Amino acid sequence: MFVLDLILKKRNGMKLNREEVEYFVRGYTNGDIEDYQAAAFLMAVYFQGMDAEETLYLTEAMLNSGDIVDLSEIPGIKTDKHSTGGVGDKTTLIVAPVVASCGVPVAKMSGRGLGHTGGTIDKLESIPGFQTSLTREQLIRNVKDIGLAIAGQTGNLAPADKKIYALRDVTGTVENISLIAASIMSKKLASGSDAIVLDVKVGSGAFMKSMDEAEKLAKMMVEISRGAGKKAVAVLTGMDSPLGMNIGNALEIAEAVDILKGQGPKDLREISIELAANMLMLGGKGTLESCRELAAKSIADGTAFNKLIEMVKRQGGDPSVLEDTGKLPEAPVKVEYIAERTGYIVQMNAEKFGMVSATLGAGRKTIADKIDPSAGIVLLKKYGDTVEKGEPIAILHTSRKETIPDALGILKGSVLIGEKPPSEVPIILGTIK
Amino acid sequence: MFVLDLILKKRNGMKLNREEVEYFVRGYTNGDIEDYQAAAFLMAVYFQGMDAEETLYLTEAMLNSGDIVDLSEIPGIKTDKHSTGGVGDKTTLIVAPVVASCGVPVAKMSGRGLGHTGGTIDKLESIPGFQTSLTREQLIRNVKDIGLAIAGQTGNLAPADKKIYALRDVTGTVENISLIAASIMSKKLASGSDAIVLDVKVGSGAFMKSMDEAEKLAKMMVEISRGAGKKAVAVLTGMDSPLGMNIGNALEIAEAVDILKGQGPKDLREISIELAANMLMLGGKGTLESCRELAAKSIADGTAFNKLIEMVKRQGGDPSVLEDTGKLPEAPVKVEYIAERTGYIVQMNAEKFGMVSATLGAGRKTIADKIDPSAGIVLLKKYGDTVEKGEPIAILHTSRKETIPDALGILKGSVLIGEKPPSEVPIILGTIK
Repeated sequence: MFVLDLILKKRNGMKLNREEVEYFVRGYTNGDIEDYQAAAFLMAVYFQGMDAEETLYLTEAMLNSGDIVDLSEIPGIKTDKHSTGGVGDKTTLIVAPVVASCGVPVAKMSGRGLGHTGGTIDKLESIPGFQTSLTREQLIRNVKDIGLAIAGQTGNLAPADKKIYALRDVTGTVENISLIAASIMSKKLASGSDAIVLDVKVGSGAFMKSMDEAEKLAKMMVEISRGAGKKAVAVLTGMDSPLGMNIGNALEIAEAVDILKGQGPKDLREISIELAANMLMLGGKGTLESCRELAAKSIADGTAFNKLIEMVKRQGGDPSVLEDTGKLPEAPVKVEYIAERTGYIVQMNAEKFGMVSATLGAGRKTIADKIDPSAGIVLLKKYGDTVEKGEPIAILHTSRKETIPDALGILKGSVLIGEKPPSEVPIILGTIK
Repeated sequence: MFVLDLILKKRNGMKLNREEVEYFVRGYTNGDIEDYQAAAFLMAVYFQGMDAEETLYLTEAMLNSGDIVDLSEIPGIKTDKHSTGGVGDKTTLIVAPVVASCGVPVAKMSGRGLGHTGGTIDKLESIPGFQTSLTREQLIRNVKDIGLAIAGQTGNLAPADKKIYALRDVTGTVENISLIAASIMSKKLASGSDAIVLDVKVGSGAFMKSMDEAEKLAKMMVEISRGAGKKAVAVLTGMDSPLGMNIGNALEIAEAVDILKGQGPKDLREISIELAANMLMLGGKGTLESCRELAAKSIADGTAFNKLIEMVKRQGGDPSVLEDTGKLPEAPVKVEYIAERTGYIVQMNAEKFGMVSATLGAGRKTIADKIDPSAGIVLLKKYGDTVEKGEPIAILHTSRKETIPDALGILKGSVLIGEKPPSEVPIILGTIK
């Protein structure tokens, strides 16, 4: 087999078979295929696409390039969730304890934030003492004992994806549904759970800007899961505005606790219940409707919150900061972001709020940057709210005062204020089964 | 400027400006842009194309990457010709002396053969003593003195094209009209002539398989010439069957001499007159029709043949092998290729005959291979001729007996014999001005 033939075949719009896709992934990962041929191949895939079968071949080839976590020691249907990345998206911190408290085991490996979206691991690390580095044995033991663990990635999962993604990033070949789906799913499938709920974000603050693209990606990922023998559901959720009121690491921990205590903003509660219900359903706990009730009950009676406390204790964290979120790291500098006119908030650009939060210290541009756990944004107003000229829309939190001018500069024009109330936008946009 | 932005811009179907194209060519040539980013860029160009302006920018950027031959010392309108490559295409050997003998100077730099098509330089080197390596000064002096010189490339012409072509060759990005046109024209424009006649071959034995593609390429190349301030005409000519009766180096010299002596096959004569007439017209010698007559006259009265003799003498060659082509290198092994049935020749696959000729020793697979000047094929029958079962269609010439089985193997199925005479096919298919 010659890689040039594969490039030409894909360039000419033909379908690759399993052997050909495996040849590419193996050859590129072990260095037999040069970067420039891989780049040409990926650009050909960008234009010609891959069908569901080819995408499954690609996913499985990348999956099989590294370790696959074996969770079979844990009894029950282990369920996982994945979000394609949003601003203010702290749902894992809510959903995982809800699901675990209802008896479905969650052994979750999460990532760190990069660019304008945050990562669950960074958020958890704003809890003093919390350990995100677990060995595979610790992860399994914790889930066996208390039904829940959230840790950073262990082992060498899908190294082929890592190498291919790095090349895509510098060759303009990121934005292709098949390549995106295969990249996400190769890592998810390597994490060893039996069932996966995918939260596919749609909107200006998300990777998928349109409903059409998001649906395609969701379908592709659900098909891959099926093809790989795992149960999966994708929930399409809105990401035009930030999710909830808080953006940042400690700030998002606090808001997750609010929800688990039966408070907090409506959009975040709704999305959390929906994702948890889908996980419970895949975990065999009944119909979606009954699982929604189960999830809501676990919040109402405090069992979900107690599960979070249990996990934090188990992973070395100080649970008192959850009992009293005022004890979480707090930023020394707080600056109001003021409305320039009176009216209704008709747009709140999630991506820009994400960038501002990162600028304030909550995120990183490169993987080596250090994060400020206290930095971020607290919204005082949301999409659809009325606001008076001079009234604060948000409060910026940071311990790096020098970032404020840049942050306010980015925010300029990120909130549109209109004269009429905007139409209501649902947060749950659809489900792909 | 970042190369990733250029990749994305082209990938998204937008037009690049001159600065952007120059940035790519300069950056890739001097090593600032990595192979993998150049490969992704070229694949994006493959899919999105380039318009006439972008293609001109690309051509000029590659042209300006190296030496540009200055022929301004030579008085008159220096004309050049370029063929996109065919099998049995010895027209330069005829056209150049015809045009020079009519008073239009020809300072021609030619290439060597590669793959299934031959090169003028290889053909000329089958004349004992003939020197194809001329300095720029020798080339100019010869043209000033006798109006004609044909030499291998001197200087470092379009090094950017060399590097980009090498990458295209291994990344499946050769077959794009803009990239092909820019590659050809950057080298042609660097050769310094004032006017260019392009012989764009169409058919199974040519790079352009369809009339539609060939027309697009021809138009693109003529537009580039204009844009660069040079006069140009493209003649579209058929290349389904080999051109003339002889394929190979010494064999093609002999056939060129036949034409210059007023003999030889009709297709070759017709195409030679047409190309020469177009060059003469661009050289200011009158209308196309009067230039056709001028060219025919220079053959009829022997002045064109005498011009070839003059050039061969001037470049150190032995003119006696042209006076008596029986003295040219002759192959020790001659094998007949026999018709398997009786009927009309309805197809004669030029590409396969070219491959066979190369296999017999007339061509090279890599630039380091040594050529056998005597090797090649003499056709006894052409497209449309009748043939009896057992009658020879062609004679294979070689001094490498061991190549015969392979050669006959390739020829299998390359000549189709039908029951009815095929439709006549013109050799001149069109002209793009």
